[in-house]
Amino acid sequence: MTTVIDLTHTIAEGMPAYPGTEPPKIEQANTVEKDGFAEKRISMFSHTGTHLDAPSHMLAIGATLDQLGMDHFVGKACVIDVQGQEMIEQSLLLSQTSLVDGCSFVLFHTGWSRFWGQEAYFSDFPVLSLGAARWLAQRGLKGVGFDAISVDPVSSTTFENHYVFFDANMINIENLTGLDALVGKQFLFSCLPLKLKDGDGSPVRAVAILD
Amino acid sequence: MTTVIDLTHTIAEGMPAYPGTEPPKIEQANTVEKDGFAEKRISMFSHTGTHLDAPSHMLAIGATLDQLGMDHFVGKACVIDVQGQEMIEQSLLLSQTSLVDGCSFVLFHTGWSRFWGQEAYFSDFPVLSLGAARWLAQRGLKGVGFDAISVDPVSSTTFENHYVFFDANMINIENLTGLDALVGKQFLFSCLPLKLKDGDGSPVRAVAILD
Repeated sequence: MTTVIDLTHTIAEGMPAYPGTEPPKIEQANTVEKDGFAEKRISMFSHTGTHLDAPSHMLAIGATLDQLGMDHFVGKACVIDVQGQEMIEQSLLLSQTSLVDGCSFVLFHTGWSRFWGQEAYFSDFPVLSLGAARWLAQRGLKGVGFDAISVDPVSSTTFENHYVFFDANMINIENLTGLDALVGKQFLFSCLPLKLKDGDGSPVRAVAILD
Repeated sequence: MTTVIDLTHTIAEGMPAYPGTEPPKIEQANTVEKDGFAEKRISMFSHTGTHLDAPSHMLAIGATLDQLGMDHFVGKACVIDVQGQEMIEQSLLLSQTSLVDGCSFVLFHTGWSRFWGQEAYFSDFPVLSLGAARWLAQRGLKGVGFDAISVDPVSSTTFENHYVFFDANMINIENLTGLDALVGKQFLFSCLPLKLKDGDGSPVRAVAILD
């Protein structure tokens, strides 16, 4: 029996958006009552809600979604609990080596998903130190994920962790939720993006698949 | 070793759209050169490209995406070759019972994906007879899928097969591609939708996952 656990925030008007971008606009273009079928028109940025960043998000010659193989978006993952950490140091990661071994994705439970929809969501979430990010980037991972809005502080202008991961051809998954139930576990993770031509990122339906 | 096979058409401006709707508009809102990061603004209908229909697409009281459990979008699937059939009759399905048994999704390889981008894509693809659709709807499936634009002829005004499946709380996956490599096989199929509030359907990244 396969169990699918949703790790995704709902896409809706008024949802949180990264400072400087806009939340989606969703219009009911057709209705069953009027047209015989319901259809919506969705207008949104490629980094809306629970989404992934491709290396081309910040690297002019970085891989676009099309240039990453399909297996870049599916693989074994684990969740590390980093609640209460201001900075996620390499020493914390080293203590989790046995959990991380064999994983293609490392996801971090910051606990910030509980602030989704509040001003508190945008600041003070745990962030990897540059050393910790580099340690992860050297492990041949497909990507890292956070239940927070970014892999760098929102106040960052240098985006150091983004660059460390993009330089290693990794993807970042941001704005995850529901990670609390998976702390310390290994499972099959899927964050398949929309098949956007030359995509720099995409909203995803991130899930854990447990057998 | 997990292998992920893509069953999805690329989302791009100028792609085919169901007659009466519009293809997506995709604007490069930000660029690495100008802004330090690349982001696109995507405007599209909820039934763009490779997509799924929720029962609420045509039933006023039909289940929306939110109302279907996560396991409704993932499960064992098989592909039946219906190339060369004008009408897919129940007798053809009965001859495939051993393949269909134990599957949650039945996908039909019409061969029409080779006409993607051509006028020929919109007509004359194999369609289920009403009897065949009813036989499928009685099997407790999660959904059916086609590498064609609809589960009814584009000329249909009654959408009989759509209603048979929606009445059974099933989803339809339309505009699949790449099914030729999977004919006669069973595999794990995923067509997870975007988490659209009250969604009547969603573009999906449909995949086969083989162990």
